[in-house]
Amino acid sequence: MRIGGRTNQELRPMKITPHYIKHAEGSVLIEVGDTKVICTATIEERVPPFMKGQGKGWVTAEYSMLPRATQVRNQREAAKGKLGGRTMEIQRLIGRALRSVVNLEALGERSITLDCDVIQADGGTRTTSITGAFVAMAFAIDKLATDKKLSKFPINDFLASVSVGVIGQTPRLDLNYEEDSHAKVDMNVVMTGQGQFVEIQGTGEDAPFSRKELDELLALAETGIHTMIEEQSNVLGPIADRIRGVHHAATK
Amino acid sequence: MRIGGRTNQELRPMKITPHYIKHAEGSVLIEVGDTKVICTATIEERVPPFMKGQGKGWVTAEYSMLPRATQVRNQREAAKGKLGGRTMEIQRLIGRALRSVVNLEALGERSITLDCDVIQADGGTRTTSITGAFVAMAFAIDKLATDKKLSKFPINDFLASVSVGVIGQTPRLDLNYEEDSHAKVDMNVVMTGQGQFVEIQGTGEDAPFSRKELDELLALAETGIHTMIEEQSNVLGPIADRIRGVHHAATK
Amino acid sequence: MRIGGRTNQELRPMKITPHYIKHAEGSVLIEVGDTKVICTATIEERVPPFMKGQGKGWVTAEYSMLPRATQVRNQREAAKGKLGGRTMEIQRLIGRALRSVVNLEALGERSITLDCDVIQADGGTRTTSITGAFVAMAFAIDKLATDKKLSKFPINDFLASVSVGVIGQTPRLDLNYEEDSHAKVDMNVVMTGQGQFVEIQGTGEDAPFSRKELDELLALAETGIHTMIEEQSNVLGPIADRIRGVHHAATK
Amino acid sequence: MRIGGRTNQELRPMKITPHYIKHAEGSVLIEVGDTKVICTATIEERVPPFMKGQGKGWVTAEYSMLPRATQVRNQREAAKGKLGGRTMEIQRLIGRALRSVVNLEALGERSITLDCDVIQADGGTRTTSITGAFVAMAFAIDKLATDKKLSKFPINDFLASVSVGVIGQTPRLDLNYEEDSHAKVDMNVVMTGQGQFVEIQGTGEDAPFSRKELDELLALAETGIHTMIEEQSNVLGPIADRIRGVHHAATK
Amino acid sequence: MRIGGRTNQELRPMKITPHYIKHAEGSVLIEVGDTKVICTATIEERVPPFMKGQGKGWVTAEYSMLPRATQVRNQREAAKGKLGGRTMEIQRLIGRALRSVVNLEALGERSITLDCDVIQADGGTRTTSITGAFVAMAFAIDKLATDKKLSKFPINDFLASVSVGVIGQTPRLDLNYEEDSHAKVDMNVVMTGQGQFVEIQGTGEDAPFSRKELDELLALAETGIHTMIEEQSNVLGPIADRIRGVHHAATK
Amino acid sequence: MRIGGRTNQELRPMKITPHYIKHAEGSVLIEVGDTKVICTATIEERVPPFMKGQGKGWVTAEYSMLPRATQVRNQREAAKGKLGGRTMEIQRLIGRALRSVVNLEALGERSITLDCDVIQADGGTRTTSITGAFVAMAFAIDKLATDKKLSKFPINDFLASVSVGVIGQTPRLDLNYEEDSHAKVDMNVVMTGQGQFVEIQGTGEDAPFSRKELDELLALAETGIHTMIEEQSNVLGPIADRIRGVHHAATK
Repeated sequence: MRIGGRTNQELRPMKITPHYIKHAEGSVLIEVGDTKVICTATIEERVPPFMKGQGKGWVTAEYSMLPRATQVRNQREAAKGKLGGRTMEIQRLIGRALRSVVNLEALGERSITLDCDVIQADGGTRTTSITGAFVAMAFAIDKLATDKKLSKFPINDFLASVSVGVIGQTPRLDLNYEEDSHAKVDMNVVMTGQGQFVEIQGTGEDAPFSRKELDELLALAETGIHTMIEEQSNVLGPIADRIRGVHHAATK
Repeated sequence: MRIGGRTNQELRPMKITPHYIKHAEGSVLIEVGDTKVICTATIEERVPPFMKGQGKGWVTAEYSMLPRATQVRNQREAAKGKLGGRTMEIQRLIGRALRSVVNLEALGERSITLDCDVIQADGGTRTTSITGAFVAMAFAIDKLATDKKLSKFPINDFLASVSVGVIGQTPRLDLNYEEDSHAKVDMNVVMTGQGQFVEIQGTGEDAPFSRKELDELLALAETGIHTMIEEQSNVLGPIADRIRGVHHAATK
Repeated sequence: MRIGGRTNQELRPMKITPHYIKHAEGSVLIEVGDTKVICTATIEERVPPFMKGQGKGWVTAEYSMLPRATQVRNQREAAKGKLGGRTMEIQRLIGRALRSVVNLEALGERSITLDCDVIQADGGTRTTSITGAFVAMAFAIDKLATDKKLSKFPINDFLASVSVGVIGQTPRLDLNYEEDSHAKVDMNVVMTGQGQFVEIQGTGEDAPFSRKELDELLALAETGIHTMIEEQSNVLGPIADRIRGVHHAATK
Repeated sequence: MRIGGRTNQELRPMKITPHYIKHAEGSVLIEVGDTKVICTATIEERVPPFMKGQGKGWVTAEYSMLPRATQVRNQREAAKGKLGGRTMEIQRLIGRALRSVVNLEALGERSITLDCDVIQADGGTRTTSITGAFVAMAFAIDKLATDKKLSKFPINDFLASVSVGVIGQTPRLDLNYEEDSHAKVDMNVVMTGQGQFVEIQGTGEDAPFSRKELDELLALAETGIHTMIEEQSNVLGPIADRIRGVHHAATK
Repeated sequence: MRIGGRTNQELRPMKITPHYIKHAEGSVLIEVGDTKVICTATIEERVPPFMKGQGKGWVTAEYSMLPRATQVRNQREAAKGKLGGRTMEIQRLIGRALRSVVNLEALGERSITLDCDVIQADGGTRTTSITGAFVAMAFAIDKLATDKKLSKFPINDFLASVSVGVIGQTPRLDLNYEEDSHAKVDMNVVMTGQGQFVEIQGTGEDAPFSRKELDELLALAETGIHTMIEEQSNVLGPIADRIRGVHHAATK
Repeated sequence: MRIGGRTNQELRPMKITPHYIKHAEGSVLIEVGDTKVICTATIEERVPPFMKGQGKGWVTAEYSMLPRATQVRNQREAAKGKLGGRTMEIQRLIGRALRSVVNLEALGERSITLDCDVIQADGGTRTTSITGAFVAMAFAIDKLATDKKLSKFPINDFLASVSVGVIGQTPRLDLNYEEDSHAKVDMNVVMTGQGQFVEIQGTGEDAPFSRKELDELLALAETGIHTMIEEQSNVLGPIADRIRGVHHAATK
């Protein structure tokens, strides 16, 4: 039996508190089980040097954990003087995933930085960050739209992410920390509202995995992400309709 | 008139949420007006190299702000690759202040790290961190006592901190960000439950200040800290009695 | 038509020069098209601190590109003073992949470091590094076996890696730099000699991808990796038989 | 009895050697007892980026100790690759203190950097640096005046600094290293020629201190600083009169 | 007897493979005995900030060793986060030496970066780098000439370098690693095609050396460099004639 | 005519003030013309890790310039966060040179660190550092001898250093900054009391130099160093006799 009595196909309870930080253009506190992440979206009216003069915007992300988000205190990367490989990998993933659903031309020459700060960690911090950051970004972009700074709404589709894994012989959805540390195969999946893949990162460090296992894991992920996007949609309210409108227009 | 209609002698509303982070030995979310800080206390059964073999414990602190705690996003120190002078100055202050009320011999050869992470900033982040960190530390030490790891309760007295300043010609208690940026004189005061000073840091960058102004500011700070310690005491409940008991015993 | 006239299902010409660097315990120069990587394996009779006293070995990797491996000179990371996110991501991937086919208990408390230095880059540098590093590692482990330092041969299976992608609407095997920079979907796949997956990293930054595309890409990768492992086997000669023997024993 | 037979109210012998370094626009060697600091003032015809275009100048400071300024050799911060917290705190203090007596508009868009390098340390290095840096700065500004680059003399008042502390139960002026390491309370005070406070930094790390102790310490500091400013005035000669003239004009 | 049976006056076998890296403007693989270095020349149409606007070009060098170029693996400087003193010293030497034979005015406002990456080390890596980098630079400059970007050929003379040393009492030419580690005196000499000195760096760490020893070492170096320049000339073909032509014109 | 009217064969006025810094085991202020360097010698009863257990001592050096030692202020390396190539090169040279006259076995398992801090620079800072550091080291070693910690005096010979160069067509001894910046050839020479060479570093960046020029420069250097060693001998008094005694014994 899993903690909290959930089945192998079930997500942990998920809660998104909108507008959690008053200074940010968009922000949420997202909780998935005991994993809690503050996601803020910052809009700046400039783009990084490598994007200048192309008439396009940029979306990027930064990720960090408070030292005591984890069971054992981990040293601050600011104190160590450099970002670790895991942090870099995660923030590259979050940025890449979010860009996949944003029309950078429609955003115009401005940048959005998503800061994902894990205040409490219990597995799935990178996938939770993506799911939360999407909502924070949508709030920030909606503010741009409200301020009449956009000629076209630049979000093409919803985006959410979940982890799946094989524990023993059993595929499971949304692993917590305990499960994750015993998983034979571990996979993070990012999908759109239309059920397309944006990222698949599957690793069989303890043992390689078969095509059949891969198929089962992808199916589980699809169900979980569908549920998550419904919750995002509830929190976003009328903004969700705009996103659906863009997608509808784009695929006509 | 001050924001929220408070008088020059009045603190902002203050709220301490205990046990905010599940993994830490002690933790609070402290809110003073719109300033919000997560304070966690981590106990480790070892001391830094320079303290080894002295039969004494150590208390230290780290301080950070989330990038979007402020009105304009500030770059992460982890990304810059080094801690700024302001951060170092603040975390040295917090550690020093907390050590002043802890009996390091009674703590035994273990260390307590207080992590103060500002998730939203509106002035007084260093003083709020001290006030919150004291409570987180008391929870963690109480856990040590409950686990029968201490022969003597090592906290001697309460500790809280507030900022005061001169705006125009008027001394004011507990400046918010807006007030702080216009203050002619800015002072942070740390005091004990018995009304003794632990730290006074007063700066007249825009203009030097007189002895009379100093006296008025210290009086304001004393009132504010008294109120804060009452609130700490309420949150700590029976732990507060133990602290008072230690102090009573120590001064007999 | 693809450069060199190859079909969408075809690998570039691949060549592995064994024992390329005289000081290393194992080494190869691997060339896949115009991508050239020197892979060396270093054996050290100690493990990293976090592995000590577990009676197990460790396998890790480092990756770098010479400044002029690329069309435009890229600044050395040593000169910048830190490793970039891309480098960290790649060297974590290489190490993780290689560990998946090594029996760390059988290796004993020693470590193998695979250095993958790209001297000329034309797409697929990370997958080529994995394919070459496997051979360098096998030479180094064989040396340990010859020196009677192992009671059991610790390599469980072959391991190779290839990139696949969607250019326009067409899935293609083994992208060169030019193709990679126009790919809509980009995927790196690591597989064993038995056709199991070790890593799948698929990204649809320009556009999300469907389940059907995923299936086609995985099928292409499987074919390519099969060919690469035949080439590894030729170069390794009798060592290849030992690897097959271990696998056979392990799966009986 | 104190070393050298001085009373609790007495400064150590103080000597200021003007024009100590030939290349600098202003420089002194200041000796307070066995503490020796080289202070140089560098004028540059530009301001830091955050000050650009405001028509104002900037004054900043850097502080360092030679490795063998102390009884035990301390490692160079250049070799460690970063500035320590103590160094940052001190150089921020020196810069802030000096700015308090400079009219930045009158200085014009140029910057003055005060380098305070401790060649021999025996307590009070930060306060000695402030007292010496003021004189070096005055020489440098006088050179600007002589070169007709200023329409108005920009130094408003004298500035000096001293440490005070409580040893046992006794307040003492100008602690040397030995006394400082036994002080229960340690306070650094920066004051102007008119006897106003610029900085008060008091710390009771070993034990908190009372209002009465604070008052006694401030009175001691005032006396010491008065004497120091007389000595600065002697060294500056006619430049001292210009400073007094500015102050007189400003307060009329 | 020396390894390979050579006499004290003999160089190791030397081989220069031109155009070794396809992306670089000029490149060679140079082998001197078992020392192997990839030298690439990169031309960029800009100069460093300190050279701007002078109508002159710049030549600079970077030097590195692959981790397993040596008998024992050495840690990457990129992983350590900084360049070591030995690396800096060597790359400053290479750059300085090459600039001595280039007419920077004739080069025009562009820069040439020579990357010398040692893939296998057996003594004399810095001297081999200089000898190889000269050829890579000549190829790159010839490409500029072919592209009609130069009004005048900017290389004044040939340049090569060799190490010499005293082993026991005997002066020897071109030390390998084994010899170098037993040398009492170690000297690196850089000379031009006309037999003038560009750099002499002689060190008697184990014991000082006499004027007579110095004279013998310089004579040996001269012979070795003469042979090396003949080999450079063979590899460069018609470009060698242009270099000789420039020298001839310059000295008329 | 040279500044100060000296001839091409003449040194600048040189002055060595012994025991300049009270905490150090040995120290001097050395002045050669307007170049002024504080040299301190620190003895520690341990050796670096790579020297442990060999029964031998170690001598090393660090070099730095105060920011305003030069005509234009140079940024602190501590602020930049890393040592520059020039600094590393110089401190390696100083340490190597000093080790050449120390019997490391006789020193015993302890280390001597020479800190050379240039407080005012006017050419020849590295050679002046060597000449001064030798005297500081001799004082520190004499203190060890006086404390009966040595069974044998470990300094074999005197050591001093000077720069020479070709200005126009003329070889000159002991270049100041102005001369150095116009020198066609620049050479630093380190020699012993017996007139043997320890280091020769000659560079012809602007133009290569002939054998004849080399000979003239070495002759000039020899004269200058002879004079410097006389001055060292005067300052060291009876310690000089011990050094001469060791040399005499060693060469019998």
